[in-house]
Amino acid sequence: MKDAARVTPAAPAPTLAEIGLSAYAPYLMNRIMGRYNASLRDDMAALGLTTPKMRALAVLSVVDGPLIGELAIYAVVEQSTLSRALDQLLTDGLIRREAEPSDARAARVHITDAGRAAFDTLWPAMSDSYAAMFRGIPDTERRAFVDTLHKMLVNIRKHEI
Amino acid sequence: MKDAARVTPAAPAPTLAEIGLSAYAPYLMNRIMGRYNASLRDDMAALGLTTPKMRALAVLSVVDGPLIGELAIYAVVEQSTLSRALDQLLTDGLIRREAEPSDARAARVHITDAGRAAFDTLWPAMSDSYAAMFRGIPDTERRAFVDTLHKMLVNIRKHEI
Repeated sequence: MKDAARVTPAAPAPTLAEIGLSAYAPYLMNRIMGRYNASLRDDMAALGLTTPKMRALAVLSVVDGPLIGELAIYAVVEQSTLSRALDQLLTDGLIRREAEPSDARAARVHITDAGRAAFDTLWPAMSDSYAAMFRGIPDTERRAFVDTLHKMLVNIRKHEI
Repeated sequence: MKDAARVTPAAPAPTLAEIGLSAYAPYLMNRIMGRYNASLRDDMAALGLTTPKMRALAVLSVVDGPLIGELAIYAVVEQSTLSRALDQLLTDGLIRREAEPSDARAARVHITDAGRAAFDTLWPAMSDSYAAMFRGIPDTERRAFVDTLHKMLVNIRKHEI
């Protein structure tokens, strides 16, 4: 096997077995995000939040009045799922909608004071999970890691945001 | 006393606004994994696979005969969701179950030749998405990135695998 591989002129893409599960970045990222999301589940449930609602609030806490389509991209939630989540957040008074003057069919979403308070209640759990992820990892390594994530996002994103 | 507050020695955890969405690693990882999963959706659907079924097959293509509980951890799929996915994969002949001799309630899962063929059909799309993620990123940087992911997983995982 090794000899054959050595003389292959254009190396074929390796298989998952050749890469190895524990060296396959999407697998590792999936495992890490799975734990991160699981660690927030109880705190979200106590606030009546689901993952799509929590993501929407998190984005709205730092992005002012995005269009719903922009919010879907930031929050990584499909538009139909996001619409239902926004309906519930609206009913609960955690967000408000505002018609876009330039386009009657478009709407911008803003977080309300109550929404900000809900997110502030959840943030310590998110912050703890974030700190736990990077425990013992030097700042320089964390920054290099985030730089690589930026390059990866630019590589594969479909939208300019 | 007010002066004492001003000189608080331990800095409080920063808020999401202070960190910034585009420097918050969980946000970036979520965006990247969202695109990765979306890029596979059509290929999965063409093979009659869902994300849980695809993840189970991917793990089984490289991990030989895990217990169902172990497979749930590797595949990052909740046990109830995984059970349904495994039932379908079994019906479709893509996996087989084997009773664990030492524990009558436990079962090990193996991929069949048909399951391996299905995964091999999907792998080029996964491999392409993986290559697209790391386009233009030097090997040394990719390896450092994966090293950091390993440290993060060890930091937050609940299980030894």
